[in-house]
Amino acid sequence: MTSTRAAGSAKKDAAAADKGMTDKADALIVFTPSGRRGRFPVGTPVLQAARSLGVDIDSVCGGRAICGRCQITIGEGEFAKHGISSRGEHLSSFSAVEQRYEQKRGLQPGRRLSCQTMLLGDVVVDVPPESQVHKQVVRKRAEARTIEINPIVRLHYIEVEEPDMHKPSSDLERVYRALAEQWQVEGVTCNLAILRDLQKTLRQGAWKVTAAVHSRVAGGAKELIALWPGYYEKTYGLAVDIGSTTIAAHLTELSTGEVAASAGIMNPQIRFGEDLMSRVSYVMMNPGGDKEMTASVREAINGLAEQVCRDAQIAPEDILDAVIVGNPVMHHLFLGLDPVELGGAPFALATGLAITRPARELDLKFNAGAHVYILPCIAGHVGADAAGVVLSENPHLSDDNMLLVDVGTNAEIVLGSKRRLLACSSPTGPAFEGAQISSGQRAAPGAIERVRIDAETLEPRYKVIGCDLWSNEAGFETAVGATGVTGICGSAIIEVIAEMYLTGIISQDGLIDGSLGAKSGRIRQTGRTHCYVLRAGEPFIAVTQNDVRAIQLAKAALYAGTRLLMDKLAIDHVDRIRLAGAFGSHIDVKYAMVLGLIPDCPLDKVQSAGNAAGTGARIALVNAKARDEIETVVRRIEKIETAVEPKFQQHFVEAMAIPHKTAPFPNLAQTVTLPPNKIIETTDAGGGERRRRRR
Amino acid sequence: MTSTRAAGSAKKDAAAADKGMTDKADALIVFTPSGRRGRFPVGTPVLQAARSLGVDIDSVCGGRAICGRCQITIGEGEFAKHGISSRGEHLSSFSAVEQRYEQKRGLQPGRRLSCQTMLLGDVVVDVPPESQVHKQVVRKRAEARTIEINPIVRLHYIEVEEPDMHKPSSDLERVYRALAEQWQVEGVTCNLAILRDLQKTLRQGAWKVTAAVHSRVAGGAKELIALWPGYYEKTYGLAVDIGSTTIAAHLTELSTGEVAASAGIMNPQIRFGEDLMSRVSYVMMNPGGDKEMTASVREAINGLAEQVCRDAQIAPEDILDAVIVGNPVMHHLFLGLDPVELGGAPFALATGLAITRPARELDLKFNAGAHVYILPCIAGHVGADAAGVVLSENPHLSDDNMLLVDVGTNAEIVLGSKRRLLACSSPTGPAFEGAQISSGQRAAPGAIERVRIDAETLEPRYKVIGCDLWSNEAGFETAVGATGVTGICGSAIIEVIAEMYLTGIISQDGLIDGSLGAKSGRIRQTGRTHCYVLRAGEPFIAVTQNDVRAIQLAKAALYAGTRLLMDKLAIDHVDRIRLAGAFGSHIDVKYAMVLGLIPDCPLDKVQSAGNAAGTGARIALVNAKARDEIETVVRRIEKIETAVEPKFQQHFVEAMAIPHKTAPFPNLAQTVTLPPNKIIETTDAGGGERRRRRR
Repeated sequence: MTSTRAAGSAKKDAAAADKGMTDKADALIVFTPSGRRGRFPVGTPVLQAARSLGVDIDSVCGGRAICGRCQITIGEGEFAKHGISSRGEHLSSFSAVEQRYEQKRGLQPGRRLSCQTMLLGDVVVDVPPESQVHKQVVRKRAEARTIEINPIVRLHYIEVEEPDMHKPSSDLERVYRALAEQWQVEGVTCNLAILRDLQKTLRQGAWKVTAAVHSRVAGGAKELIALWPGYYEKTYGLAVDIGSTTIAAHLTELSTGEVAASAGIMNPQIRFGEDLMSRVSYVMMNPGGDKEMTASVREAINGLAEQVCRDAQIAPEDILDAVIVGNPVMHHLFLGLDPVELGGAPFALATGLAITRPARELDLKFNAGAHVYILPCIAGHVGADAAGVVLSENPHLSDDNMLLVDVGTNAEIVLGSKRRLLACSSPTGPAFEGAQISSGQRAAPGAIERVRIDAETLEPRYKVIGCDLWSNEAGFETAVGATGVTGICGSAIIEVIAEMYLTGIISQDGLIDGSLGAKSGRIRQTGRTHCYVLRAGEPFIAVTQNDVRAIQLAKAALYAGTRLLMDKLAIDHVDRIRLAGAFGSHIDVKYAMVLGLIPDCPLDKVQSAGNAAGTGARIALVNAKARDEIETVVRRIEKIETAVEPKFQQHFVEAMAIPHKTAPFPNLAQTVTLPPNKIIETTDAGGGERRRRRR
Repeated sequence: MTSTRAAGSAKKDAAAADKGMTDKADALIVFTPSGRRGRFPVGTPVLQAARSLGVDIDSVCGGRAICGRCQITIGEGEFAKHGISSRGEHLSSFSAVEQRYEQKRGLQPGRRLSCQTMLLGDVVVDVPPESQVHKQVVRKRAEARTIEINPIVRLHYIEVEEPDMHKPSSDLERVYRALAEQWQVEGVTCNLAILRDLQKTLRQGAWKVTAAVHSRVAGGAKELIALWPGYYEKTYGLAVDIGSTTIAAHLTELSTGEVAASAGIMNPQIRFGEDLMSRVSYVMMNPGGDKEMTASVREAINGLAEQVCRDAQIAPEDILDAVIVGNPVMHHLFLGLDPVELGGAPFALATGLAITRPARELDLKFNAGAHVYILPCIAGHVGADAAGVVLSENPHLSDDNMLLVDVGTNAEIVLGSKRRLLACSSPTGPAFEGAQISSGQRAAPGAIERVRIDAETLEPRYKVIGCDLWSNEAGFETAVGATGVTGICGSAIIEVIAEMYLTGIISQDGLIDGSLGAKSGRIRQTGRTHCYVLRAGEPFIAVTQNDVRAIQLAKAALYAGTRLLMDKLAIDHVDRIRLAGAFGSHIDVKYAMVLGLIPDCPLDKVQSAGNAAGTGARIALVNAKARDEIETVVRRIEKIETAVEPKFQQHFVEAMAIPHKTAPFPNLAQTVTLPPNKIIETTDAGGGERRRRRR
């Protein structure tokens, strides 16, 4: 309460300083790194001076020397720079309160608690990054935008007036008054769960409590979502990426943005259907089947939450906020919405708007007052996961044209720059995930993940997940051990087919050259077509003609989607490419380009974005403004429906060839080491350009 | 959509009319009774002209000749008054669409559908009361304020754009757009229950649906709470008064304010304790016992809802809104809040603020999207029921000082006028309800409800509930039948003690005059005190000295509370008195004044307010503005805690006498026929005035 009054007078003083009317008893304070400065009466606490100047210093306890968030450094070296000759002694000396804090919780040398440090004369004070509310979190990739910390859930320590029979007012009203007077947090509502424990909590904390306030629940209101007796400082959030195959969760400390624990599990909906469309079919065949899938995904998230909380040694009740991303079908099933409309044209979403709902309404066992934010969907096949990718990769802030590709059963494609953004999805099918491939399997120990084919002998060598040796190295079989070699994972399918193409085993049209059987036992006839044998043992692992066709169809769909967006933007090349998701993390972009999955682009401009959808969820978790941002951006994105674009079919057909008929790959030729006995020549065929390799 | 555009142009036209710049092709329309007028192009639908002039005409279907709410009358008699010579033929003729409506749903002669009637020339149009959105409902009591109809839940028929692959947007977004474009309803959110059925409902209704929008859920947002395929027009709300003894529910049609059905049942919490404090004690003795009581009251409300819906032949899903009132303990138990803090000083409410929560969160089985509004509590012992009484009786709008008294285990007292309002509660105990009275019982068949005592013989006569004869009339015993005479109900206790006083059986100090035993067998000795025998049979029904003491204590508490508020307001009399609740409905105010329950007041200014708390709930149900009003008024009411007011004790002691020591009752003396052998004289005793009756 005092802070309000004092802040008012400090403001007046700051105004006086602006006008040059400085009082004898006033002292100048300069804050670094912001450079903000002002004059305040001698005796003003530094925290209060900072607040009235709008200097970003954190505080949960509101100046009571409990939270230690408001630490400052007295940097003598800085003094001369600002032309102030005064020194550290122009601040009140290290107080008994600070000594107690130091003993209890530790304080680095040179650090002071700004709430306990009074201004005695002119001084320069440094606010270290960890004391700032709006901290910046630098991300691993150099080009990625830093994440600003500005969580939608904030803690506020308050001292609540006790009930007084002479001035009857309810406990809740006095809590609201304390929030307004001590933190300027007004217009708060609360739910019944809070009310249920309110009186007990207040008395248990002897009228000193910590309140968690969500600044924008459904409808836009502020809500008091949790209340603890005394001082409390745990604020965690959960970012969840619901993939068709796996669900990943990141437990994140809201005030720092640090990931405290991560975990992933298989999506239990797999038992209802491997891919999205088979799950939608399941609902069509079993009305009400969506309810089982809804229950299973929610249960899985609760399980993940328990696991990450155990790892981080906190309780699920400490999860105060959550952000969810997922493709439209996952999005609908999580929300308990029947996904059948997404199974057929016109692919209408029930809702594509961002959603904030109480966690308990979604059966999530977090804090009783926690809310869940679900990112907006872009279109019927471009989901909240794609919105997460956008939030992570920022094409809407890019000067040049960026291509974002998130490959799953459908590829979600976003293309553009800050001028214009387009999105579509392309029906790649599950081939890239290793499904519908004869020896395909999920990425797991035993799965082939890398393949090279000798251009002369056509002999393969490969690596499997869980073993560091190549298959032609001594000790490989021993190292692989009992697991053995079990199949080919999605990323290796790309590599082996690209290698088959580079070594001439398959032609530009994707046909396996059976005549090579004479040269190598690796090429064998199977029925009316041929296959390439990677491993003749048990299991027998080969790439069949059907496998090549499946990948051709998938890559043609992906390329045609990209190409369609390029047409709409009227551009003939993209400046940067980000491959998101597990697939994007594992494939060698070189091979993706050899096969023609993505348009030509300087190879150093093609990068994996990692789990960008999950990163987007984390950003929305720690930064309330990022939610506004993505909601605005999603509205701006132009949605292109490939199914109704006649040019999509044309691009699709043309992209069946390897790499494809419409675009040369100058950037690729510089990087890929082509077999020495091959020359690249370009001939014109079918109206498009075509590259042919001669042996 | 067309309505927006057309309204815009009509506004322009109205503006042109204001400036006198009338177009040749424009026609003048005058609406009665509002008197609003404007010029519009020939061909403008009357409904559209009305809307652009702000004339209050209802419509659910938005001008599609479905709802029939927009009916107008072409009143020729009105023409001359407005100096317009034009007649009915200045409107388009009765159309085929109107004929169809007439055949299907009926249309009174002279009535037109304003949405289908076009302006052809100057005309006067009358809007009948039932076509107005903001209808006025006149209440039975002449002095009661009319209720304005302005429900917080409104229906809007909309035509939603179908999904289009060329313009992907989700179904919900198109619903929101239709609400915005066709009804100017913007900023709407919705819950998951709505989303769950959204796609099915839209397709079932062929993209024509009726939306129910709640204009202010928790946090203040608008929420789409229900959606029906096609046109729908049932809007019901439930007003519930949770009394300690009985729970009453009134099913109300929201658009008319009409009560469709009412029902009441015993509060099932009675098995946990007869009165409020015994229920609070139950929780103190049985931690968690509040949960049982919460479940039982919610179950009871669900049962009542089923019953009134059955009576009105609707489904509980048609209940779209509800308003609850109750005293603070009932309020807390209904909300699932532990009431123990209300059991002792400082009597802190968990919350006294008005609450809007989803019905499902309170386990109420109404429409899945329904919300419940709970009126604010005034203080720890002055609950949402007292707020309901205020809303019904409007002391805050009164020029003179009104006293509102709602008697229960505690009496809730509100006193004041539009200048200043005070409230307190007074611990009357349950004596007025017949509890703690030797022969007391609840009002039920067999209970004595009226008593007269002959001044000469001291013989009583009485009436019992369920029988029209007085006990001294022939055939009484036969008429009473098997039920017999079982006890004395609360209102009769007041009467018999007042009659005992008027006939000299008890003195001013409340002592039963044992010497009268010589004169009448009705006065008998029981132990060290005497009693007055009403009925000597089986059961033996008598008024004991303890009974008189209990009533003296109760009436002293009630009077002292009123007196305390009068002191605070510095007034020595009140201008009007309203007695609320069952007790207030049944007692004869004359006897209440003889005993000194209430201060002296002209008898015609003392009235029963009926179930005023329930009426207040009904008002808040049908009028959104009434919710703002009561929330504002409750904040303004000054809460007086009798327990900490030293003067309360003094008033209490002085009020033990009959009527009491501090105030003469000139108004009463004129009305009550005093026994002929008594004279009233006034002596001074104990610093107060005292009236003494001499025999």
